[in-house]
Amino acid sequence: MRIGELSARSGISTPTIKYYVREGLLHPGERSGPNQVAYGEDHLHRLKLVRALIEVGGLSVADTRTVVDLINSPERGTFEAVGKAQYAMTPAAPAPAPAAPPESLDEVDRLLTRWGWQVKEGNPARETAAAAIATLRRMGQERLLERIDTYAKAAAEVATTDVEAMLALGDRESMSEAVVVWTMVGDQLMSALRRLASEAEAYRLTRT
Amino acid sequence: MRIGELSARSGISTPTIKYYVREGLLHPGERSGPNQVAYGEDHLHRLKLVRALIEVGGLSVADTRTVVDLINSPERGTFEAVGKAQYAMTPAAPAPAPAAPPESLDEVDRLLTRWGWQVKEGNPARETAAAAIATLRRMGQERLLERIDTYAKAAAEVATTDVEAMLALGDRESMSEAVVVWTMVGDQLMSALRRLASEAEAYRLTRT
Repeated sequence: MRIGELSARSGISTPTIKYYVREGLLHPGERSGPNQVAYGEDHLHRLKLVRALIEVGGLSVADTRTVVDLINSPERGTFEAVGKAQYAMTPAAPAPAPAAPPESLDEVDRLLTRWGWQVKEGNPARETAAAAIATLRRMGQERLLERIDTYAKAAAEVATTDVEAMLALGDRESMSEAVVVWTMVGDQLMSALRRLASEAEAYRLTRT
Repeated sequence: MRIGELSARSGISTPTIKYYVREGLLHPGERSGPNQVAYGEDHLHRLKLVRALIEVGGLSVADTRTVVDLINSPERGTFEAVGKAQYAMTPAAPAPAPAAPPESLDEVDRLLTRWGWQVKEGNPARETAAAAIATLRRMGQERLLERIDTYAKAAAEVATTDVEAMLALGDRESMSEAVVVWTMVGDQLMSALRRLASEAEAYRLTRT
């Protein structure tokens, strides 16, 4: 298809598509004539992913390039590629927060042991969890940590269903894309559902 | 205490404290002499909350003011204040995303009915959830929606434990602060635990 059709079908403007190609987020189309470049379904597919990473996930162009490069890179194993793509989407900690103190990381590692979760030390979510724990302590809200296993149980339930569905997809490109989108949109969905459930639960428990 | 002690105990610089007072995020201290202003424990408490909202929650000064005003406002009922504080912390949808289409809102409302969750129509998390659903459809990842009740169940478990712990706090200021911090940090914690559990689960299911 021509760039105009790619733009119409993706809902992304022609200048933005050209910008993504220049930035290496999208392969160039194939030259099909002196002034014509042809794009395929794979371009449309990739464009949707790039848009989701930037618009929905709020990733920078550089981080988006890291994620799409990982999904593409042929020299890695499937699970390595999928895992690295997820790591690239996980900020180690909210930007201006101080690094997580070692005792919070220990607390995360004890939780991992308690749940039998085998996780690489380089998983940036270890740092994110430790930073959250440190924030709770700094704020005098460590009571939440008495309930951290409820959070872990809920996370495990969601993760199990997601991973099973991902494995059922079979091919590497579908798996990577699914993980990227589910990770990102799943956070938003879980955050929203938690707020809705909280309001409903507060209403239920205080209505008498 | 003097402003220097307040700064030392909160870890927030004197100019920043003065800025927060000017912006109405913190009550002014009491004038205790010609060049002296005295601050109390309530200032320290409030400063920690303001810092968490800005640094951890990423709220703007204006949104932070909305949240602390709601926590303070004496003319509202406790639950109304707590609820409004949570609403103020929930973006209706990620900033540049288009508004959620009505069919996605219907899908959220069907989920609320299915789970018996009574929620005000003005709860902004309805829009956030609908926006997430619309993104999944736009990305061709609607398969996640077949598992949305697993997400809802997990959200309900976490919400129940949080709301019970909140109600046990008793007084309104503690409840509001707890909800604000737990909502915010709970998102980060859940997001991190979901990633850790996913890696562990992928490893478990593919190791043979």
